Amino acid sequence: MSTAANTREVAFTQLGTLLGDRFTTNPTLLEQHGRDEGHLAPSPPEAVVFPNSTSDVREIAKICFKCGIPMIPYGVGTSLEGQVIPARGGVSIDLSRMDRILKVNLQDLDAQLESGVTRRQLNEHLRDQGVFFPVDPGANATLGGMASTRASGTNSVLYGTMRDNVLGLTVVMSDGRVLKTGGRARKSAAGYDLTALFIGAEGTLGIITELTVRLYGRQEAISAAACAFADLEGAVNTVIETIQMGIPIARIELLDEVQIDAVNRFSKLNYPLKPTLFLEFHGSTAGVKEQSEAVSVIADENGGGEFNWTTKEEERRVLWRARHDVAYACKALRPGSKIWATDVCVPISRLAECVLQTRHDIDQSNLIAPIVGHVGDGNFHVVMLLRTEDGDEMARAHAFNERLVARALEMGGTSTGEHGIGIGKREKLMQEHGDAVPLMLTIKQALDPTNVMNPGKLFVDC
Amino acid sequence: MSTAANTREVAFTQLGTLLGDRFTTNPTLLEQHGRDEGHLAPSPPEAVVFPNSTSDVREIAKICFKCGIPMIPYGVGTSLEGQVIPARGGVSIDLSRMDRILKVNLQDLDAQLESGVTRRQLNEHLRDQGVFFPVDPGANATLGGMASTRASGTNSVLYGTMRDNVLGLTVVMSDGRVLKTGGRARKSAAGYDLTALFIGAEGTLGIITELTVRLYGRQEAISAAACAFADLEGAVNTVIETIQMGIPIARIELLDEVQIDAVNRFSKLNYPLKPTLFLEFHGSTAGVKEQSEAVSVIADENGGGEFNWTTKEEERRVLWRARHDVAYACKALRPGSKIWATDVCVPISRLAECVLQTRHDIDQSNLIAPIVGHVGDGNFHVVMLLRTEDGDEMARAHAFNERLVARALEMGGTSTGEHGIGIGKREKLMQEHGDAVPLMLTIKQALDPTNVMNPGKLFVDC
Repeated sequence: MSTAANTREVAFTQLGTLLGDRFTTNPTLLEQHGRDEGHLAPSPPEAVVFPNSTSDVREIAKICFKCGIPMIPYGVGTSLEGQVIPARGGVSIDLSRMDRILKVNLQDLDAQLESGVTRRQLNEHLRDQGVFFPVDPGANATLGGMASTRASGTNSVLYGTMRDNVLGLTVVMSDGRVLKTGGRARKSAAGYDLTALFIGAEGTLGIITELTVRLYGRQEAISAAACAFADLEGAVNTVIETIQMGIPIARIELLDEVQIDAVNRFSKLNYPLKPTLFLEFHGSTAGVKEQSEAVSVIADENGGGEFNWTTKEEERRVLWRARHDVAYACKALRPGSKIWATDVCVPISRLAECVLQTRHDIDQSNLIAPIVGHVGDGNFHVVMLLRTEDGDEMARAHAFNERLVARALEMGGTSTGEHGIGIGKREKLMQEHGDAVPLMLTIKQALDPTNVMNPGKLFVDC
Repeated sequence: MSTAANTREVAFTQLGTLLGDRFTTNPTLLEQHGRDEGHLAPSPPEAVVFPNSTSDVREIAKICFKCGIPMIPYGVGTSLEGQVIPARGGVSIDLSRMDRILKVNLQDLDAQLESGVTRRQLNEHLRDQGVFFPVDPGANATLGGMASTRASGTNSVLYGTMRDNVLGLTVVMSDGRVLKTGGRARKSAAGYDLTALFIGAEGTLGIITELTVRLYGRQEAISAAACAFADLEGAVNTVIETIQMGIPIARIELLDEVQIDAVNRFSKLNYPLKPTLFLEFHGSTAGVKEQSEAVSVIADENGGGEFNWTTKEEERRVLWRARHDVAYACKALRPGSKIWATDVCVPISRLAECVLQTRHDIDQSNLIAPIVGHVGDGNFHVVMLLRTEDGDEMARAHAFNERLVARALEMGGTSTGEHGIGIGKREKLMQEHGDAVPLMLTIKQALDPTNVMNPGKLFVDC
């Protein structure tokens, strides 16, 4: 395929001609596009491009495709498993300038937007219109990035994940073909579900340039509270019983006592140093009251302390800001450390067992590692705070992680509820879906035959 | 690939040896497996097989694959667009004997079952356990068939479609490979979403033999009602406002006056001959009351008559039985006629316009065709009652259908909300997803390279 006229140098010249100063090999920008927020070693791209439109992405893809240059879609770099790290060199395609909100349809509760729009930008845009977009992974990620990693977060126990909240996509394939998937109807049985195929594909099949997402009307009432428990078991059992009773809780987050300590220090709060649930209900005033009372009863039976329900926006904001700042709070707990966040998700019936065994394992492994999680979905993170230069500590972290994933899989769970596979969990994907991985590879090969779309991700041998 | 030793005759002998009397060429059974409940011409398979297990299906696939014999997965034959009709001959794989409910996990609210289990069988099994499976397309279809056509129905406005309610699958590929997709965790970001790929693939990529589905706790209160409206517009606007206000309604179904007439005659009821909404709320006693009252206000403002809310199971059953029997009621409205049910779905903001234009078009086209639909999703069916021997009437039906689909697509909708593409809508798939169909074909070719999995479905040239 590659001819003399299509050397990498020529391709870069063509990209420069196409994009002007939106093509760069500036070392600072290369370095910045070579890492994410996870624990994996950085590796810079050979160049960074900043498309302004789907049509720019199409032309970039055509040039890279002709020359066999890897393309790495990049949003704002908040991935945790190396999804944006150019493992095989190539061009980092930074979509953050494609940040137009193209249309908000209040009547249909949907919005069309470019993939570089961030979660916070979208919700600020929607604030005065009585609607919101619920998926909230904590980081202020781009919607394209969130779709690509099948992100979820604190609200997903009620509103679902990116899988449930994207109606359609515009995608640029490796060779520059542009296609639209899905549509604006709330449901469709028309052909293969390509939307779902690109969501969670981590940019290995194509580049998402536009999305149609679902919006939700702001509820009449929102009520939030924190509740401390005598022990971890009581907190987790409160979650399990709440979910099993079908109480439509919007958020139910667990922070263990190590995490609470970190949050108190970082956010200057004074929560009791105990395993704590952060909860939130959305609904009518009467509905929210009824649900809060039902959960209070469950918590009380499980050794929970007092609930201080609040419907005041300012108080709620303090509470969830503390939850959102967990990653920074953790880092501050051990200055100079690097974060390695695990991400298992298990059936709710096994959650208490899994969390308790894991907490025991952390202590036995002599690791500093708070637990925090979207426990309503059975998903929790162990946030290991590591000195990467300490070989012994890293070895203990690796061994712990192996045991954690094995434990979750044995319980019918998954190695990743929301962070994805990236570079970091490729072997875990084999462990979890060994019989399905060959089929995934067949699809990868069919859709990206020259393996230029974010190579080195998802699969060990790709 | 095909050798002398692998002629079709040899393959059939091998199937007979494998399955005994569960392999048949009995003409009655062939005839029965050559048609569905839709309007398309039947075409019998060459043989029918009745596997008892995934392992049977694997062996059947190996034999058929070697000889290039088309395989047509068959549940109970309730498809509407010819999905089970053997368009290219071959073997109909009747999965109805694979009807074991393998495990019900009440704590995790999920169940594992074979794909021949029917919707009603599952819910009867669950009845005394306080849980239920919500997806309800009307027909007593198999869960495998419902997954394959991405079915939905009356409850989907609250509980979602098959896309939202299947956690994992066991699938036999064309060459006999068996693989598992998804799992029991409520969410996962581990690799491509193969579960979603097989849901709605209409058996063209593989044969679903087992499913893990989501269950829901029975709510404390269920309240249902019918409400007649002065005109169609008022009924549809009530739906639109209810959805836009985010009232969590479980069912909201529209029957126009022609449909009500059919229902009254067939089910010996006496609803007023007016456009009517059938509604249902699920929740706490207080919540259901609150929601019913909110919708009553909306209906009142739109010319709705009195609501007679009932929480009595017997009264609810009469109401929904009438709704479920709509297809039979329609047939009885014009004895000897054949049903052709359309299935467009549009963004809710365009629903009133779409329904009203369509009703006008039906009348102008001189067709007998009630309208009934899952209007909360923007989805409605025009149930054309046709004398297939009347060429002029058939021509008017075809022309009407073209206009209907064009109207829905122009409004940002889809040609099929829940019935699928099958044989009947292959050109509509091109109209709707012309730029994505080549990618779908690439996937089809990669996963079923010899085109033996339900050929002649979805794609015009396949």
